[in-house]
Amino acid sequence: MTTTAASTTAPTPRQDLPEDALAAGIGARFTIAAMTDGYVDVILAALRDPELDTSGLQIETGDVSTFVRADQATLLRYLTDVTARIAASGVHASIQVLFSRGCPGEVTCDLPTDASTLAAPPPQGRDVGTYAAAEWALYPLADNVRAGIEPDHMRDIYAAIDLAKELGTFRSSVHFATRLEGDLGRVLQTVVAGWTLVGRTVQHVTSHVTISVNSPSHADVD
Amino acid sequence: MTTTAASTTAPTPRQDLPEDALAAGIGARFTIAAMTDGYVDVILAALRDPELDTSGLQIETGDVSTFVRADQATLLRYLTDVTARIAASGVHASIQVLFSRGCPGEVTCDLPTDASTLAAPPPQGRDVGTYAAAEWALYPLADNVRAGIEPDHMRDIYAAIDLAKELGTFRSSVHFATRLEGDLGRVLQTVVAGWTLVGRTVQHVTSHVTISVNSPSHADVD
Repeated sequence: MTTTAASTTAPTPRQDLPEDALAAGIGARFTIAAMTDGYVDVILAALRDPELDTSGLQIETGDVSTFVRADQATLLRYLTDVTARIAASGVHASIQVLFSRGCPGEVTCDLPTDASTLAAPPPQGRDVGTYAAAEWALYPLADNVRAGIEPDHMRDIYAAIDLAKELGTFRSSVHFATRLEGDLGRVLQTVVAGWTLVGRTVQHVTSHVTISVNSPSHADVD
Repeated sequence: MTTTAASTTAPTPRQDLPEDALAAGIGARFTIAAMTDGYVDVILAALRDPELDTSGLQIETGDVSTFVRADQATLLRYLTDVTARIAASGVHASIQVLFSRGCPGEVTCDLPTDASTLAAPPPQGRDVGTYAAAEWALYPLADNVRAGIEPDHMRDIYAAIDLAKELGTFRSSVHFATRLEGDLGRVLQTVVAGWTLVGRTVQHVTSHVTISVNSPSHADVD
């Protein structure tokens, strides 16, 4: 309940974490559900791969999800790298990500005093070679906006949709969500880019995406 | 992207679907990820159990999630019944639900002309006998509110938290979410009740929850 529940402890800064990501409350929670008896091995092989670049990230793994804090480009790189490993395992998996930005205090959503990351350009993604289908929701939440910028979240949401169409990932609107399809890396890029675009004028923006990879239902498109 | 993307087809009414749930845009999308090689059997055994009460529901299953439309009490009953079957299988599963209400047009969020369901009381849940841990986000979205009601979503969110504490499911605030723990049925009741409470004055309210059941991490609490 991001708008109200009190955060009892301050986030722990790490030396390699960009201070502006911390100040701007930029981060994500993700859950990987690998549908195999060997789910522990599949998930840990991805998260603990020594080749995985975890620079610039604060990572805390829990029983429901893994929390990651970083700037948008680093988040996209990390989530692409992790989920590409899951996809490469061939195991059917459901990947769920909650992105949040602009509410560093969890409760008050005070405007960061120096949060240049909030104005960052949409990050670039990469192809990973696996088809993904996804359902995406994007929520502009804050009533207050960044000083000196005229609020126009509809302009930014349309820009997000245009980007999804440009990336070839936009498929359709479904009840309560937008359906994306395409390369897993481009689906993630679409979501992170859209969330970033809306954040240009709306301070507190969250986004949720549920991604399916290696589904038996996708046999005809893989 | 609930605020913008166009819905190309109108929802299909069903004879047994309460008209006010349809008019008020009340429904959910849920994804069950059962972490076993036999995931298809586990999930279908739950969804297609002939004992499962599907009255009052419109149900459409897709490759990413299953869409359900019904009034709040019926949604809670159905989701509790389905996930109780998953929990009873003993298989570790991640259950993700998106709830939405008050935006029947998907795009414009026009105020329903007769949406008494929006003022419904929080529905009652039931114990299912399985421990669950969850992360919950609740989003009051609409700027417009129902006619004749003074907007006060903070009052309703505090009421939602108080209810979570009363039900014994509230644990703590985590980054971007509220952690709930307890009987799976009471966790679901908390989420549906909170979403319903906020909807008393805010027209468009969504809520996302990720629930973990039968986790090896829960061995000490089961």
